[in-house]
Amino acid sequence: MNKTSLLHLLFILCFFVTTTNSLPISYSKGKTIKYKNPRTLDLDENLRTYFYDQILDHFDYVPESYTIFKQRYFVNFKYWGGANSSAPILVCLGDEQEMEPYLGFMDDNAASFQALLVYIEHRYYGRSVPFESMEAYKNTSTLGYFNSAQALADYAAVLIHLKDTLQAQMSPLIVIGGSYGGMLATWFRLKYPHIAIGALASSAPLLYFDKITPQTAYFDVVARDFKAASKSCYKFIRSSWSGIDHLASQPSGLSMLSKRFNSCYPLEKSDELKDYLFSIYISTAQYNYSAVMVICEGIDGAAFGSDILSRIYGGVVAYHGSNTCTVNSDKYTPVEETFYGWGWQRCSEMVMPIGIGKSSLFPPKPFNFTSFAAQCKKDYGVSPRPHWVTTYYGGQNIKLVLKRFASNIIFSNGLRDPYSSGGVLNNLSDSLIALSTVNGSHAMDLDPANENDPEWLVDQRKKEVDIIHGWITEYYVDLAAGLLW
Amino acid sequence: MNKTSLLHLLFILCFFVTTTNSLPISYSKGKTIKYKNPRTLDLDENLRTYFYDQILDHFDYVPESYTIFKQRYFVNFKYWGGANSSAPILVCLGDEQEMEPYLGFMDDNAASFQALLVYIEHRYYGRSVPFESMEAYKNTSTLGYFNSAQALADYAAVLIHLKDTLQAQMSPLIVIGGSYGGMLATWFRLKYPHIAIGALASSAPLLYFDKITPQTAYFDVVARDFKAASKSCYKFIRSSWSGIDHLASQPSGLSMLSKRFNSCYPLEKSDELKDYLFSIYISTAQYNYSAVMVICEGIDGAAFGSDILSRIYGGVVAYHGSNTCTVNSDKYTPVEETFYGWGWQRCSEMVMPIGIGKSSLFPPKPFNFTSFAAQCKKDYGVSPRPHWVTTYYGGQNIKLVLKRFASNIIFSNGLRDPYSSGGVLNNLSDSLIALSTVNGSHAMDLDPANENDPEWLVDQRKKEVDIIHGWITEYYVDLAAGLLW
Repeated sequence: MNKTSLLHLLFILCFFVTTTNSLPISYSKGKTIKYKNPRTLDLDENLRTYFYDQILDHFDYVPESYTIFKQRYFVNFKYWGGANSSAPILVCLGDEQEMEPYLGFMDDNAASFQALLVYIEHRYYGRSVPFESMEAYKNTSTLGYFNSAQALADYAAVLIHLKDTLQAQMSPLIVIGGSYGGMLATWFRLKYPHIAIGALASSAPLLYFDKITPQTAYFDVVARDFKAASKSCYKFIRSSWSGIDHLASQPSGLSMLSKRFNSCYPLEKSDELKDYLFSIYISTAQYNYSAVMVICEGIDGAAFGSDILSRIYGGVVAYHGSNTCTVNSDKYTPVEETFYGWGWQRCSEMVMPIGIGKSSLFPPKPFNFTSFAAQCKKDYGVSPRPHWVTTYYGGQNIKLVLKRFASNIIFSNGLRDPYSSGGVLNNLSDSLIALSTVNGSHAMDLDPANENDPEWLVDQRKKEVDIIHGWITEYYVDLAAGLLW
Repeated sequence: MNKTSLLHLLFILCFFVTTTNSLPISYSKGKTIKYKNPRTLDLDENLRTYFYDQILDHFDYVPESYTIFKQRYFVNFKYWGGANSSAPILVCLGDEQEMEPYLGFMDDNAASFQALLVYIEHRYYGRSVPFESMEAYKNTSTLGYFNSAQALADYAAVLIHLKDTLQAQMSPLIVIGGSYGGMLATWFRLKYPHIAIGALASSAPLLYFDKITPQTAYFDVVARDFKAASKSCYKFIRSSWSGIDHLASQPSGLSMLSKRFNSCYPLEKSDELKDYLFSIYISTAQYNYSAVMVICEGIDGAAFGSDILSRIYGGVVAYHGSNTCTVNSDKYTPVEETFYGWGWQRCSEMVMPIGIGKSSLFPPKPFNFTSFAAQCKKDYGVSPRPHWVTTYYGGQNIKLVLKRFASNIIFSNGLRDPYSSGGVLNNLSDSLIALSTVNGSHAMDLDPANENDPEWLVDQRKKEVDIIHGWITEYYVDLAAGLLW
């Protein structure tokens, strides 16, 4: 999991907001997904690849339910203290992309935990697609088993199997994930406490469902980030959209726009440019606040008397450099399976009602469920179930509910991240702990530690490690006390 | 829910143990289920019947998933304090039978709680069958959605709908059930803590899955009950089986057996008699320990020099009286839908490995999963998933797991009940409380209070009521403290 691969969350959103045909599905038969990981069984001496015979449908007993598919997972034995000492197991729960058997937080801390590291790929991504890859994305008969509850049950089955195989039944197990993976980690701890003793959920917008979080919250944070960088920058960007539209509506306007923004291809409509700018603004807000400041310096710092479009282009150049052409949509497009996969997930159950409010960086656009549902029907043939996530996982009145139920979850967030608006930002109890950083971005704490990391990030990670050590210590005390029946 | 209707648990078991063709499915097209409750919307001024448009498959998004069926539930408004005062809601979670809108424990205590009473019928029982009644029991394509996880999600959807409709979102809600319904109540609290603040699980054999409980435990308790009544009685019964077989193998033996046991029809094989006796022994052990004593007095008290069969018949007469013929299987047969429905549930996910050990009242018969699975395949076309219950709900090392997770569950058991061997008999934490009574039977505490109830039963119920009042009080304190975000 890295920043680039996390962009999908942003991207699906992006397409939703600015284009009419929000989730274009044009998954032609000829295309092939390029996988990063070779389908080999041993990556190196310590890092092994496995395929588990997973059941398609854990929750039903119709004939199709019994279909078996190969689910991939990776195990890194390098640091493990072994089953005899009930050494811990850290598990990265796969999210909406091909799994890579590496997570900064886990690999950095494995030695201190003497932990086995496990990475399980999410169904319908990477090499864990139940149907012949292209088939799976074709219609609801094959896509219909693609959801979080089934994925959590997959993880449960794999982990029980793995513990049995290693005779590590008594090893404490911690699940870890970021963004959607962080939601999965939280939900796994809540639904499968008999398998995971705790969860680290980084930047998980658990409360961005139904009406728990105001629908404009995401874009309000984007606006806050840019305002914090520079109020004038915020105002310039806000006024730029009409400027772009105005120029585009002139004779040869699109050609002039293409030239002024050095676009990689001649623009056919102003939306192409607007989508591109939109992407830059929200991706930097989500992942990289220092880039927000760079952009704003570029916008604010344009030569005296510059018009608005020159300022905006100045921001783009400050961010990208002047050597590359722009409106290069490929740069931000996630891999296809993530694009279509997460699109499906949003259209079926992960219905996050994100709209743009009046004081945002962008023209207002309220979330409209009716048109959202119509688009989902068109793109995937599926009718969204907007209340399922809160029905199954909860979310409303979360402190009232969880204060006296559940334990051992860390909700980490960076408040620069627009998704933090849907995160758990306050402690729910002594062991349901919120760790927020004022300047943090999306799932930063899971990235590999780096000597240039700011102190608050080092500190956040240290707290996470300490808390998890505390859970494990407590577990061993309980184990020694013979609570085994 | 009453004792007679709870017999199914016993009965499916009974057929399993003694007959070869353990779960005969002969659900012919012509048969009609007789329902006790009229399909009317208003039973009386306070007790209303509703039908909720329930989704067939909560966990998938294939086209069939979206099928809607009518799920019945009842609401008794008589005692409710109302939404304005956030008065409590007590919910009886339907189990493997048609729902009757009455439960002793709930109706007896409704006034003290000022509670709304809700009774939700379990899918595939009563009037809540998703397919045209006879269709549903035909094959796995229609039966396949019949399981506990779907049922719990049904309850969640109904209860959220009900709370919204009544604007009673902040009313504390307690779920209650006995036997399988007690398992459902526990699991509902564990999986849906955002809907139920607590659960009363009476006689729920939550640990009778996988290898958590020794497979002979059920029948070991039956033996213990009879031994406790009389050691000689226990021995007489143990030796009677070969006596019956011996006589049956003689010329005209079956005719003599029929005569000596006053059977309602001429016996065709000794198994008919043995099944009948078996049923009496285990049903009394499960539901009515004083009847165990009556039977044993009949057996022990036979005239000096009586042979073994006369003693056994003496026990039958002591229990049934001498006016009725015996081997009247109808008397114990549960309603058809319960028989076939629970048979399906046992064959798909509720795989309780119950075998007969060496020191039981009956000839030893270990549980054999292979033959069990073959029979299920034959009867229902389904392959059991014996590890699913523990995968999804847990059970192993339950104290280690739940000591620091979850809260507010009462596990009540009567130790005379053979199913108590799979129950939670010790506190797991301060609010996960085991209430066992030495002389209690299966789900007795949920029966209507009666002036002849023994003090220990009165006491058990009082403790339950007090604990639940405690949960509700604590909830109101939290609510008043403003834990509402």
